[in-house]
Amino acid sequence: MLPRRPLAWLAWVLRGPPGPRGACAPGAAGSWSKRAGPLARRGCCTAPGTPEVPLTQERYPVRRLPFSAVSEQDLVAFERIVPGGVVTDPEALQASNVDWLRTLRGCSKVLLRPRTSEEVSRVLRHCHERNLAVNPQGGNTGMVGGSIPVFDEIILSTALMNRVLSFHSVSGILVCQAGCVLEELSRYVEERDFIMPLDLGAKGSCHIGGNVATNAGGLRLLRYGPLRGTVLGLEVVLADGTVLDCLTSLRKDNTGYDLKQLFIGSEGTLGVITAVSILCPPKPRAVNVAFLEIGSHCDVPASLELELKQSSCLSLPKCWGYRHERLRQAPFCFCLILFSDFPCSLQGCPGFAEVLQTFSTCKKMLGEILSAFEFMDAECMHLVGRHLHLASPVQESPFYILIETSGSNAGHDAEKLGSFLEHALGSSLVTDGTMATDQRKVKMLWALRERITEALSRDGYVYKYDLSLPVERLYDIVTDLRARLGPQAKHVVGYGHLGDGNLHLNVTAEAFSPSLLGALEPHVYEWTARQQGSVSAEHGVGFRKRDVLGYSKPREALQLMQQLKALLDPKGILNPYKTLPSQA
Amino acid sequence: MLPRRPLAWLAWVLRGPPGPRGACAPGAAGSWSKRAGPLARRGCCTAPGTPEVPLTQERYPVRRLPFSAVSEQDLVAFERIVPGGVVTDPEALQASNVDWLRTLRGCSKVLLRPRTSEEVSRVLRHCHERNLAVNPQGGNTGMVGGSIPVFDEIILSTALMNRVLSFHSVSGILVCQAGCVLEELSRYVEERDFIMPLDLGAKGSCHIGGNVATNAGGLRLLRYGPLRGTVLGLEVVLADGTVLDCLTSLRKDNTGYDLKQLFIGSEGTLGVITAVSILCPPKPRAVNVAFLEIGSHCDVPASLELELKQSSCLSLPKCWGYRHERLRQAPFCFCLILFSDFPCSLQGCPGFAEVLQTFSTCKKMLGEILSAFEFMDAECMHLVGRHLHLASPVQESPFYILIETSGSNAGHDAEKLGSFLEHALGSSLVTDGTMATDQRKVKMLWALRERITEALSRDGYVYKYDLSLPVERLYDIVTDLRARLGPQAKHVVGYGHLGDGNLHLNVTAEAFSPSLLGALEPHVYEWTARQQGSVSAEHGVGFRKRDVLGYSKPREALQLMQQLKALLDPKGILNPYKTLPSQA
Repeated sequence: MLPRRPLAWLAWVLRGPPGPRGACAPGAAGSWSKRAGPLARRGCCTAPGTPEVPLTQERYPVRRLPFSAVSEQDLVAFERIVPGGVVTDPEALQASNVDWLRTLRGCSKVLLRPRTSEEVSRVLRHCHERNLAVNPQGGNTGMVGGSIPVFDEIILSTALMNRVLSFHSVSGILVCQAGCVLEELSRYVEERDFIMPLDLGAKGSCHIGGNVATNAGGLRLLRYGPLRGTVLGLEVVLADGTVLDCLTSLRKDNTGYDLKQLFIGSEGTLGVITAVSILCPPKPRAVNVAFLEIGSHCDVPASLELELKQSSCLSLPKCWGYRHERLRQAPFCFCLILFSDFPCSLQGCPGFAEVLQTFSTCKKMLGEILSAFEFMDAECMHLVGRHLHLASPVQESPFYILIETSGSNAGHDAEKLGSFLEHALGSSLVTDGTMATDQRKVKMLWALRERITEALSRDGYVYKYDLSLPVERLYDIVTDLRARLGPQAKHVVGYGHLGDGNLHLNVTAEAFSPSLLGALEPHVYEWTARQQGSVSAEHGVGFRKRDVLGYSKPREALQLMQQLKALLDPKGILNPYKTLPSQA
Repeated sequence: MLPRRPLAWLAWVLRGPPGPRGACAPGAAGSWSKRAGPLARRGCCTAPGTPEVPLTQERYPVRRLPFSAVSEQDLVAFERIVPGGVVTDPEALQASNVDWLRTLRGCSKVLLRPRTSEEVSRVLRHCHERNLAVNPQGGNTGMVGGSIPVFDEIILSTALMNRVLSFHSVSGILVCQAGCVLEELSRYVEERDFIMPLDLGAKGSCHIGGNVATNAGGLRLLRYGPLRGTVLGLEVVLADGTVLDCLTSLRKDNTGYDLKQLFIGSEGTLGVITAVSILCPPKPRAVNVAFLEIGSHCDVPASLELELKQSSCLSLPKCWGYRHERLRQAPFCFCLILFSDFPCSLQGCPGFAEVLQTFSTCKKMLGEILSAFEFMDAECMHLVGRHLHLASPVQESPFYILIETSGSNAGHDAEKLGSFLEHALGSSLVTDGTMATDQRKVKMLWALRERITEALSRDGYVYKYDLSLPVERLYDIVTDLRARLGPQAKHVVGYGHLGDGNLHLNVTAEAFSPSLLGALEPHVYEWTARQQGSVSAEHGVGFRKRDVLGYSKPREALQLMQQLKALLDPKGILNPYKTLPSQA
């Protein structure tokens, strides 16, 4: 049992970010002021003169299926169905043909922008009759190439289907068209004292229809559960134009098969989602975010080491007092060494085991108010600093965690978080940290975690993996790959939603290289399969992952997927070349 | 704004149940001591000499489909596949042929009790080849006749598939066979500091496989969400014997279509669930249950009315003191009238509007710790008293609510609940109540709500409706039916999961009567459809509701259901006559 050290944590958290030790770089203040705003906004990582993205059909071994080509008559028909919503200008089409990561490119010549499900229905009926392939597109923020054409599929955008249809102020049930942008919906419901049950870095661009179609996970899954539980109803247009109205607003409905589940996560291959009914949780009255460093860098100054060795009887309270005094005095303080009476602290760089232990403790002590537990490694922090000029509010460290609590009573939440921090600091799990309660600081801390994707994309070509793994093995693949790839890779980083067992493993290099790809695949997938993990935790399958499904799904499951596709889209016109393995 | 009355609620809650005003009937102490134990245990409502349940095929217009009949050779084959697990003794089969409500009866002559999914697979392969119909059966606690044969379908019981396969003590993920009894699983995980994410009255008998197959809702849905979010993986045997292994233990897995969702809630018509992987939440450190009365009976004694009229300057503190004094003195105390400075209090019987307002307040003030909000009307209380000898711990009242909180900090939870009660009492929403924190009392209070079904089944023939409705209209159908049916019905009662918009509407009569049925149906369904409600919130469809799906699902959805059935079970051998409309 740890001795109680009341209020010790208080002095610690009151320092707030970013203090003198970890101030923002002068030019970076602006970056702090918005929460991941530019992330995933189309084109944000396209500097002038950026080289053109190679065509998917040229880089990857894929053959066009025998769909019809769009004719002049088709365009006339589309113009009749979607007046003013037919885009054929190659320049205007460019952004919709390239994925956000800028590694895949289609060559669609037509983009349609319907405003109603009736228009979507008429478009699909026409395409079905004419055997024209269709690529449904939301905010085009996906990571697996699911939202852009591979060849010349017609792009069917939900961008103009952006109306809120209803909101129930007692139940918190929101019904809206599929093209509503997540961040705008968040704003809408927050004004009414609710929040969206999901939140992700791409919120500024992604559409709710796309979120549902890809079964997006994101930052609030730990607390509010997956979309399969919070989406109450869907309106979907099937491949032949049939409108399937399952847009109910009921928390419970056991009237037969739950058909909407077929479309959640099927990436537009079984139908086009045109409207969503979703349960929004009440807005928490208090939100706290703690950003903590775990483990320590190892360059402990010799003088301080000596001081510690001499002081063999350092009692805990003395440690604490000493620590806080040091914090105030020193521009660089080595908090970890002050916990030297705990045997693990000075034995090299503490590692991921401490992150896991912190998670376990956190779950127990924060219970129902824990709303996020995110982690990132030192290389992530290095990259957000380098490419986005976001400075770390804490000391350099092997791992950082971001903990968010959301609750209905600020006092109670602060007390719970305080007890946890006191325990975590006292037991040397956590070595330093900073805390935020006001919205501006909360956003600043979240930006460090949310903008990693953006920082990575500026670092070069990114090989992205999004794995579900048993938490105790979560980081092993990162260290394994660093050893395996050596200087072939620029950076190998790991971060993600530890609370959900979800690792974002990213490898950057100057450019795409088949040999590096060969060193990564199938190694990463085989490793994941050995842990009974998932080769796609939340990003989905899209174009990129369709031939690796077998690592996570048995043959019988893949067969049933093919049968479902054949049942719902017998001509295969909806989002072809995606989600299903290329070889049956 | 209400004036603050600190600690006023404390004296109130400390009284505890059941006090002298609402003591258990002398012979009823035993009933209090177990939480709904006998509810749904097979045969619990069959007194000796109970008349035989009429055969379903005789009472309802249903024709046997052209399946084969079980031959001697089939029995030999089954004995080879499931050695010692083939039951043909008519006496032993009796209980499995009748539903728990004792209103439906099949005439199956064979019950199979496999122990492994391999055995289930071999049984189904045989049945598929021989065109033999199969009725999967768990605990047989369903309310819609989904778990018993209609004709001579082979009963495939999961009773012996009752092994826990694994439990992960950090993540709380439980993997077990389908035949594990919910209450036993609860005990198992509670010993490991977790709880099952679902809880229902039938817990003592129902199987987890049946819970998943029927997408059971129950008492914890408000807090932990539906099974569609908490079930992480399933193993399912398809109609032709194919084993579909989707038994993953990952919180996130977006590798293609989420096939397990097809089987959750499909009532054994698409496949037989043989194993379940489910996410268990950490066991809350503190549980509080408050049982409150809403509104008041109206027989205010004249003397007391007079006293109130004369005392025009009753201040609130005086009210409170007076109230508590009265509570101790009077065998019948009229708590409501003590809030006479709030205009609504003496204006007739307060009604459901107060229940709704209490719910809204409760959600706001209890936030993340609210784990149940149940309501029952006066007639429910009357019936549990009459048939089960459970006495009300509070005053007679038009409505009662049961509020449960579950949290990680007893002090914080008590403070939140205290503030809520103080507010609710002070604003005359709630007129009286009692509270429990220790497990015995918690169970006693829960029994009042959980055992209503049992009390109803002892009252006569029960016409059961399980509706999802907009909360503001939830009780209207009860009052509507009382007026409509008059003396035709013995009782018309309403209770349920208010927090989920789920009303259990029950009508009792001495015996089944076609004319009463005619007065109820389609009226109840049409009424529900007009509110965009669901004609089956959590009980499912089974045999009883299959022809009323059209009130809640459009034609296109019913067609797609039929197509899915044809895809997964082309011969239609799995649980025929259930879930899907009889006419395509």
